[in-house]
Amino acid sequence: MKKLEDICRTVLRRIRPKRVERKRILELADRMRLRVSDAASESGLDAEVRIDGSVAKDTWLRGEADIDIFMRVSPALSRDELETTCLRVVRKALKGYRIIERFAEHPYVETWIAETRVNLVPCYRVEKGKWKSATDRTPFHTEYMKSHLDESLRDETRLLKKFMKGIGVYGAEIKVSGFSGMLCETLSLFYGTFRNTVTHASNWRRGETIDVERYYEGRREEIERLFDNPLVVIDPIDLGRNVAAAVADRKMWEFVAASRAFIQQPSLRFFYPTVAKPFGVRQLRSIIADRGSALLLIQIGRVDAVVDILWSQLYKTERSLRNLLQENDFEVIKSASWSDEEACNAILFELTDATLSPSKRHLGPPVSRREESKNFLEKHLKREDTVSGPWVEGDRWIVEKLRRNNSAEALLRSGLSSGGKSIGVAGLVADTVKRGFQILLNEEITSLYRSNRQFARFLCGFLKGRPIWIDS
Amino acid sequence: MKKLEDICRTVLRRIRPKRVERKRILELADRMRLRVSDAASESGLDAEVRIDGSVAKDTWLRGEADIDIFMRVSPALSRDELETTCLRVVRKALKGYRIIERFAEHPYVETWIAETRVNLVPCYRVEKGKWKSATDRTPFHTEYMKSHLDESLRDETRLLKKFMKGIGVYGAEIKVSGFSGMLCETLSLFYGTFRNTVTHASNWRRGETIDVERYYEGRREEIERLFDNPLVVIDPIDLGRNVAAAVADRKMWEFVAASRAFIQQPSLRFFYPTVAKPFGVRQLRSIIADRGSALLLIQIGRVDAVVDILWSQLYKTERSLRNLLQENDFEVIKSASWSDEEACNAILFELTDATLSPSKRHLGPPVSRREESKNFLEKHLKREDTVSGPWVEGDRWIVEKLRRNNSAEALLRSGLSSGGKSIGVAGLVADTVKRGFQILLNEEITSLYRSNRQFARFLCGFLKGRPIWIDS
Repeated sequence: MKKLEDICRTVLRRIRPKRVERKRILELADRMRLRVSDAASESGLDAEVRIDGSVAKDTWLRGEADIDIFMRVSPALSRDELETTCLRVVRKALKGYRIIERFAEHPYVETWIAETRVNLVPCYRVEKGKWKSATDRTPFHTEYMKSHLDESLRDETRLLKKFMKGIGVYGAEIKVSGFSGMLCETLSLFYGTFRNTVTHASNWRRGETIDVERYYEGRREEIERLFDNPLVVIDPIDLGRNVAAAVADRKMWEFVAASRAFIQQPSLRFFYPTVAKPFGVRQLRSIIADRGSALLLIQIGRVDAVVDILWSQLYKTERSLRNLLQENDFEVIKSASWSDEEACNAILFELTDATLSPSKRHLGPPVSRREESKNFLEKHLKREDTVSGPWVEGDRWIVEKLRRNNSAEALLRSGLSSGGKSIGVAGLVADTVKRGFQILLNEEITSLYRSNRQFARFLCGFLKGRPIWIDS
Repeated sequence: MKKLEDICRTVLRRIRPKRVERKRILELADRMRLRVSDAASESGLDAEVRIDGSVAKDTWLRGEADIDIFMRVSPALSRDELETTCLRVVRKALKGYRIIERFAEHPYVETWIAETRVNLVPCYRVEKGKWKSATDRTPFHTEYMKSHLDESLRDETRLLKKFMKGIGVYGAEIKVSGFSGMLCETLSLFYGTFRNTVTHASNWRRGETIDVERYYEGRREEIERLFDNPLVVIDPIDLGRNVAAAVADRKMWEFVAASRAFIQQPSLRFFYPTVAKPFGVRQLRSIIADRGSALLLIQIGRVDAVVDILWSQLYKTERSLRNLLQENDFEVIKSASWSDEEACNAILFELTDATLSPSKRHLGPPVSRREESKNFLEKHLKREDTVSGPWVEGDRWIVEKLRRNNSAEALLRSGLSSGGKSIGVAGLVADTVKRGFQILLNEEITSLYRSNRQFARFLCGFLKGRPIWIDS
């Protein structure tokens, strides 16, 4: 077993940006900053244009720099003006480059220059605390981290980020619902070292609170009142905000579990997981057949939404369909959503059975409740779908009923037939469903598997069902 | 709709013993009393021999008289002496008659004379309250009812008994676990009329208490402390005893439900249910096939026990096997025990499925519990019976496992293979099981159905699953 320190040293050697890359990125960032700044001046827009994010804070990983250029404009501008004016300036500055307009809480622009992603983000130049838009805090975060992270802490942050990427919990976007870069920096600042972070994370409890600036000293119970998240990390520049608000239960606990496993048996695989090659189609077929459970895939086309909205709609739809299945007594072993973020989206269920017994036991009211008993008897006596009973068992009425739906496929098909809004399918997904959907059962899924490598990898992970760091 | 009073009058005309039958029964009873009394004298046994029970109280139904002859002997006799001496006297008295030795709390003798059952029961001649055996109270009950029931109350009691027989809740023996004759008399005494009894019973609640002698006046809450039965009727001659102790939940609530139905729509069928003719074998086959559920019958031979013990052992075994099935995820819609009380006993289950999916979802501990999580991972990682996972869902570990048993028949077969005591099969039943058992699935059950008319009637009732008064 290698020692934890040796492994960290090895990883750091691989992820710390080299001088030449650093120079290239910083020069590119500065060039972009000037370009936007000039375009703003020319347009008569009073904007403070600055480099923010991990490049500014020097916490980025080798080969993975994202350049964030922020344009701070007067808070006197309306939201509409902010959006239209800034976008106009950005378009002018990037004339000749292919740009992608994106949307988080408000619009921003993404472009790629020499394989480096550059985000151009408008925000308001407000005083600390007087936030007008969600991105107004970023420049304050940059300044805070620049003044608090020394070289050693920047390295520890890089290790933590790489670890989180390796185990699949890095990223605050809805698809991942994990740990943001700012959250990694704040954790590193609080715990001092990567080792200390994972050691403490091993013992985190639900509602774990971290308050690096001690805003709540002497009144920590107030934190519990204010925030209802599995992990609460008070923003060092805003005591009213939880930097970990995006972290879903599952991602928090995967991080906790991986931290424990890493401490117990440190290994490079936590940082560099080996993704297994997908099974061949024939092998997949026999795996599905041997398993005996039922795989049921709902495949739909393009959803008209930006990426974050897309995933939030897919997840909502997955939850609704899962509830529908469970309410109809199907045992859902596992479910997941998948998207190529372009033309193909899918929701996958593993059920113990795709078909249930035709009848079921149905529990009625206690006989002592006279009115309920009367209604129960009226409802079930001499009805076509009453198989047997009602009878008295202990102190209650029981009846054996035919199930309304004993085929999962038929249940989903009828639920989705007009889009599925009434069964909780999210609006934009329902619009797509209306245009058509496919339900694939068990080995029928090989059709998509065969044609889409991304999906194939996803399905293999789903079938294994283990966090990647457990296996590799 | 006939009026309730008309129906009661009609029933009473049919169940009130006619003068000639009354004369015959009373003469027969007196003859038996003298015969036993003489035999006792001859044997030098100091015994007060008396007529007790419904014949003495004049609450018996036409054509259904049971004659109870009690022999009250000195409490100085030991239990052994009571049993051996009294049995010897009885045998002497009944020389030439076929007698059956029976056993409730202590032995008694049953014989049949001209189609009338005669029970000869020894007990102690004790003062009220100084009970030495369970039957010592009977003479006091007789005296109490003789002095409290006038002709009208005796008729109301007959109506209540007939109603309870009709709906299948009459009898304190374990097979029925219903209402004894003494309980019917006490209820009639308390409520005054049959109509009033069923009217009040319609609104009974769990733990309903009736205290005809007002022993607990001003401290009724004490009754709740003392008795934990669905129905509590304080014995009018013993404030420490619940006359309704034998009444099972199910029988109490069947009586309540039938009372409501009778009041709402009075009908002779509550007193005289029409038992449907069993289905033909071919019809039975198609009913079983159409139903889609699984019928599973365990058939065993003679159990060496008196009737009450036999039923208590069958019921215990039924509960244990039901638990076994449920613990292994089989959904038991309904179960029942059947016996011809001689050579053939059976326990019947209706399951939604006789075979389950090969794998199932298994819930693990919250990730936050470090020690439990460690054990869980050790238990399930890289195990042959782990199909997929473990993975994190929300804040818990989940894993997909192969079921140990997905065939109900195989599960029962293995559980019963050495008698089944370890899975809770009652001792005397286990002894029989050891000698062999049969498991019949679905249409295999027709073999017993064809050969045993009693069983055929039982199975038809089971398949219908409704109390008889609902249907007929």
